[in-house]
Amino acid sequence: MGISVYAKKDFSLSPSDLVVDETVFHNANGYLGVRSNFEEGYPDGYNSIRGTYVNGFYDFSYMGQAEKLYGLTEAKQIMLNICDTQSIKISFEGEKFSMFSGEIISRERLLRMKDGVTERNVVWRSPKGREVSIQFVRMASFEILPLFLIQVRIRPLNFSGRIRIESGHRGDVRNFFDPSDPRVAAENIQYLTVTEAEYRDGASSILAKTSKSGLTICSHVKNAISVQAERSTVQEEGEITEMITMDVKQGETITLDKFTVICDSIRYADPKIAARDALQRALNLGIEALFEKQRDYLESLGVYDAVEINGDDELDLSVHYNLYQLIQSVSKDLHGNIAAKGLSGEGYEGHYFWDTEMYLQPFFTLTIPALSKNLIRYRYSILDHARENARILGHKKGAAYPWRTIMGQECSGHYPSGSAQYHISGDVAYAVTAYYLATGDLDLIEECGAEIVFETARLWLDVGNYYKGKFHINEVTGPDEYTCLVNNNYYTNLIARHNLRWAVKFHELLQAAGCGQAVLQKIGLRPSELVEFARASDNMYLPYDEELGINPQDDSFLQKKPWDLSTITEAEKPLLMHYHPMYLYRHMICKQADTVLAHFILEDEQDEPTIRKSFEFYETVTTHDSSLSTCIFSVVASKLGFSEKAYRYFGDSAKLDLFNTHKNTKDGIHTANMGGTYMAIVYGFGGLRIKETGLSLQPSLPSAWTSYRFRFSYRGSLLEVSVDRSMVMAKLLAGPAQRVTIFKMVYELSDHLTISI
Amino acid sequence: MGISVYAKKDFSLSPSDLVVDETVFHNANGYLGVRSNFEEGYPDGYNSIRGTYVNGFYDFSYMGQAEKLYGLTEAKQIMLNICDTQSIKISFEGEKFSMFSGEIISRERLLRMKDGVTERNVVWRSPKGREVSIQFVRMASFEILPLFLIQVRIRPLNFSGRIRIESGHRGDVRNFFDPSDPRVAAENIQYLTVTEAEYRDGASSILAKTSKSGLTICSHVKNAISVQAERSTVQEEGEITEMITMDVKQGETITLDKFTVICDSIRYADPKIAARDALQRALNLGIEALFEKQRDYLESLGVYDAVEINGDDELDLSVHYNLYQLIQSVSKDLHGNIAAKGLSGEGYEGHYFWDTEMYLQPFFTLTIPALSKNLIRYRYSILDHARENARILGHKKGAAYPWRTIMGQECSGHYPSGSAQYHISGDVAYAVTAYYLATGDLDLIEECGAEIVFETARLWLDVGNYYKGKFHINEVTGPDEYTCLVNNNYYTNLIARHNLRWAVKFHELLQAAGCGQAVLQKIGLRPSELVEFARASDNMYLPYDEELGINPQDDSFLQKKPWDLSTITEAEKPLLMHYHPMYLYRHMICKQADTVLAHFILEDEQDEPTIRKSFEFYETVTTHDSSLSTCIFSVVASKLGFSEKAYRYFGDSAKLDLFNTHKNTKDGIHTANMGGTYMAIVYGFGGLRIKETGLSLQPSLPSAWTSYRFRFSYRGSLLEVSVDRSMVMAKLLAGPAQRVTIFKMVYELSDHLTISI
Repeated sequence: MGISVYAKKDFSLSPSDLVVDETVFHNANGYLGVRSNFEEGYPDGYNSIRGTYVNGFYDFSYMGQAEKLYGLTEAKQIMLNICDTQSIKISFEGEKFSMFSGEIISRERLLRMKDGVTERNVVWRSPKGREVSIQFVRMASFEILPLFLIQVRIRPLNFSGRIRIESGHRGDVRNFFDPSDPRVAAENIQYLTVTEAEYRDGASSILAKTSKSGLTICSHVKNAISVQAERSTVQEEGEITEMITMDVKQGETITLDKFTVICDSIRYADPKIAARDALQRALNLGIEALFEKQRDYLESLGVYDAVEINGDDELDLSVHYNLYQLIQSVSKDLHGNIAAKGLSGEGYEGHYFWDTEMYLQPFFTLTIPALSKNLIRYRYSILDHARENARILGHKKGAAYPWRTIMGQECSGHYPSGSAQYHISGDVAYAVTAYYLATGDLDLIEECGAEIVFETARLWLDVGNYYKGKFHINEVTGPDEYTCLVNNNYYTNLIARHNLRWAVKFHELLQAAGCGQAVLQKIGLRPSELVEFARASDNMYLPYDEELGINPQDDSFLQKKPWDLSTITEAEKPLLMHYHPMYLYRHMICKQADTVLAHFILEDEQDEPTIRKSFEFYETVTTHDSSLSTCIFSVVASKLGFSEKAYRYFGDSAKLDLFNTHKNTKDGIHTANMGGTYMAIVYGFGGLRIKETGLSLQPSLPSAWTSYRFRFSYRGSLLEVSVDRSMVMAKLLAGPAQRVTIFKMVYELSDHLTISI
Repeated sequence: MGISVYAKKDFSLSPSDLVVDETVFHNANGYLGVRSNFEEGYPDGYNSIRGTYVNGFYDFSYMGQAEKLYGLTEAKQIMLNICDTQSIKISFEGEKFSMFSGEIISRERLLRMKDGVTERNVVWRSPKGREVSIQFVRMASFEILPLFLIQVRIRPLNFSGRIRIESGHRGDVRNFFDPSDPRVAAENIQYLTVTEAEYRDGASSILAKTSKSGLTICSHVKNAISVQAERSTVQEEGEITEMITMDVKQGETITLDKFTVICDSIRYADPKIAARDALQRALNLGIEALFEKQRDYLESLGVYDAVEINGDDELDLSVHYNLYQLIQSVSKDLHGNIAAKGLSGEGYEGHYFWDTEMYLQPFFTLTIPALSKNLIRYRYSILDHARENARILGHKKGAAYPWRTIMGQECSGHYPSGSAQYHISGDVAYAVTAYYLATGDLDLIEECGAEIVFETARLWLDVGNYYKGKFHINEVTGPDEYTCLVNNNYYTNLIARHNLRWAVKFHELLQAAGCGQAVLQKIGLRPSELVEFARASDNMYLPYDEELGINPQDDSFLQKKPWDLSTITEAEKPLLMHYHPMYLYRHMICKQADTVLAHFILEDEQDEPTIRKSFEFYETVTTHDSSLSTCIFSVVASKLGFSEKAYRYFGDSAKLDLFNTHKNTKDGIHTANMGGTYMAIVYGFGGLRIKETGLSLQPSLPSAWTSYRFRFSYRGSLLEVSVDRSMVMAKLLAGPAQRVTIFKMVYELSDHLTISI
């Protein structure tokens, strides 16, 4: 069953490693996330990023434009760092526990993925020789989403004496900032103000308000101690500390259960009452039941069984780690989505990008369709903002989803690599279609999917124009952020064509089902518009270069200045940190998969020899400076039978955060890449496709593995595919029989099926 | 001799008209400029822009980039509003003079262009019936550049009594700001701090320091009164006011001569001592001599004789007005250049653009070559900054002149319409060449011109690249700011070709003259680079559309979405104030002449039928939202024989500021357009060209005129061309004989020549 515990023995105590581990071992449940900081703190000068976040809890931040041009964004939403309740300082007979004093006899950090908890286990010898075993267990509860729990187990090993615990709860926190790094905030601004702080009935409660968005957050903390103890509290501005003192005998274990409950005013009418209720519920259940429910929830999702790799434990672990992070990151309600960094850090300021639809949603659609449905409903909930955004961009009709956002407004301050990425609207429509094809759920299309697809289709008509009989889409940016404001980006034109086509198809499907009128009336969609959708998609211009026999990324990509990748030094990477945007845009160089991505998601738009040549060409010009790149190259390499390459790209993707290969995991995990790892296995090695023609598989086995298997939902059934050296086995684990094409042969899958290869 | 006084009788007192007149009647001498504010002030709520400026006197202003990407500009230089010494408040027996109380019996404003002064003449009846005549004469002295003078002549008409004058001198001023207008500053920031203010020896002196650039400015004010008076001073923070009180008889005229001397630490080692010296010099000369020298200077320049139009007084006046403003705006030393708004306002923050080289310098080259030489030397003085700017933009070699600057650093905050305008480097090189062709002055080429041309030529090699054998220049912006970040902008590629060719030619010319080695050694220019210059220019790719038979503005201009100009409402103009940049860039629409400008300045690169078709095409897509546009359309219309169009475009250009047709003259005059007016006459109607092949003329006479004539310098000679219905006359007024081609016939001009037409 593979490895379910990620263990880091004798972990490094260097500041630069610790700040990465804060991300790697963070706890989150899709609603709240807490970075894995040391409860007892750090020596001065350690640049720790101490953070607690709630998905979608934001304030507005002003970002001046150097030149004030019409329509440029000047205010963005940012995810706030909220209350700090991690602080637990422990002293033994006056000697303060610290990882940086005395002697660490043993130490390890664990992520128990099946249990949904992290651990830090330490045996410490104090400067005066007192030895003690301390265990910190942390959990962001899936059962009670507002609940974050720290359990501390303390055992004096060679002495009896007085133990004193200071358990802190601070409300006046600020976001992390670093003026030298464009990927995180540059300024130290106070967004949150504590409006109320009290200690009552054995628990502390702090209310804080945002400065501009008018939101409130309540944090509620209770410390439960397993033994008799003296207790008192100290209250300073915006901070309440509980002091717990007790005598403990050698060999005896005492346990502190620190319950933190955080409720925001987005989800809860009265965050304070909601927090008290949630705490009471947690206390009533008891900590052991909470741990058990955590395990049960994770098991019920089937995430751990979604993929299994045999023959490379490190990769198997990496993959499970990545999938676990997706569960930690995805919102369980409609008030949030999946931030680019999940709830693990402040990189990209908690914004939601196209990452969700193109890199993350496939996993949910195939594994937990209910959460995929949520993600579509979230996009629907911000459709009015997308309409407004289209108007700002000059369009009389349609909806333009913002490039990056929390609550729906464009938060990108640099339009060439931001708002210009019109493809995001097509990506949202694509995800709706992909969900429909995998689930057959026409109800959701009626409820909201069709309206999204119609409004984004309208946008393309207003963005594009006919030129010499073909429909062109000019002045947009495709996925590749090293090539901006171009004409006829192949990916964009394809996703627009798909969007337009499916607008027509969904219209037909709803009409056929007798439920298409409501949305047509709501948005005043005229039959002539449907005709125009079809005309534009049929006549969509797609750049093709006869000489190279490839699809150029856009009209002018091939004429740009070449840049030999082998001449780029390590010090120049990533290029965006060392070169002016214009310089990058002027070169024939890619940050990430762009045309190659199009060749994957809309593969039937091009023949395989062309895709092969394209792939080989783009390999020579792609830096993979984006974390959204190698996973896609892996998928397409698999498709083309480049199995070694597929495996190497997959490995790069799978290990990105666990091995901090992009050097910025400290700012948070790369959720899109994690979803991409899943795609590299299921779409890549597994060759899974779900199209209008149905489900198909084209599995291959990387030579380093002995076997692998994956499970997925398809139209109400649960299927499992196993692949080893000699055979492919497809099993129907639950649900109705399904037709499946394997290696181009069609089978009716009612039980299980074994095919020798 | 035409009209030399611009008179505005019964001028409007509405705030919106007054703020325009502040610009129109400003006084400047190329070193300092003072807006024409009412000395006595305005009622509350009048949004006057009270300003005094020194050319090139700046501070740094922070401009945050909404997203911090590598190389983006975050600090700009801005021209500061400095000391306010205009304030003169007059009261008659306690009744304060104001244009907004009592009754204005008569009023007029005058600009006396031959005298170099402005006047405001008022006969005022006070609320209590006292009648008085007041005349304000103002002058920015060309004799003593730091000197600004206000002479006030006061005559009580129907009473005798006590007159009290408060003459103010304030040092703690701020720049104008308006958060709603992207073309002026948005924030109210204190850049200047008064460090010293004293009244001594009958004069007040204020020193102020900039906050970041470390510059100092000293203003020194002396009030000289023609009669015995009681005098006292009041000093408040940063302000010194002199009170002058006297008894005046009915009919008697008293005169106040207010001398302001302003010296900065850029030009003067000790601004305070320099200011005292300059004041002493002014006092020694006396006011009448100063007025006389002002007249003499203007006459000596020959500006008034540069052009004369007979048959349309309004246009003749407009043209002389425009040329006068050029003299007011141009720096007389190397510490300044010509700001886009001259010294008349804060629009474009006192920055110097390509406007200088392409719109203004032709007038100076042809009229006052010494000042043209200064402008080249100024560019040379900032060549190191241009080199540094090239490095910021990623280039290993060459110099990239900043799009907008004061002291040489890039001050554009929006690179798509700023730094991307690489053509400015070619424009600077073009101006060097044009100066050389008109003057034959190879010394200046040796001194600095060649180095500029070599370094800008190097830039093109690093910016462009070969594609299919042709040299392409990608990802730049041409003159048209509604089409940004394009490939192979026709104008840019042509100016680059010209730049590269002239690098080779200047090298040959200097070698032939035996003086080429020093610069080669200084910048390490290798022979192989000269070969590359020639190769790139010979193989320069120039977009051409077979179907339309025109040069498209760039590779993709013709495929963009059409936008029918006739559908644009007045409320939408200028488009940049109402549409997102991307929306504009996506459309086949131009803000200004771009390819049409190329067809003028490098006309021999294309045949006339193509130029004709291009012109007709670009007419249909150009909004002329830029003030740099109609003058060029006029020149090319003349060339093509579209005389009515030429005349209409010329009229639009000539009257732009005097009639405030762009609605933003309040922020300052449009100097480039003023230079363009000159070009529309001399290059347009006159058909003047100076090329390697020599001087040629192709004059035509607009049907509305009876005749016109213009004078210009050419290779040490002064020539005059007169055109009327029946003939063209060319005269050699001074200097050696010159060869001139008129209507394709070559003449040797040693005296004068009359050709019947």
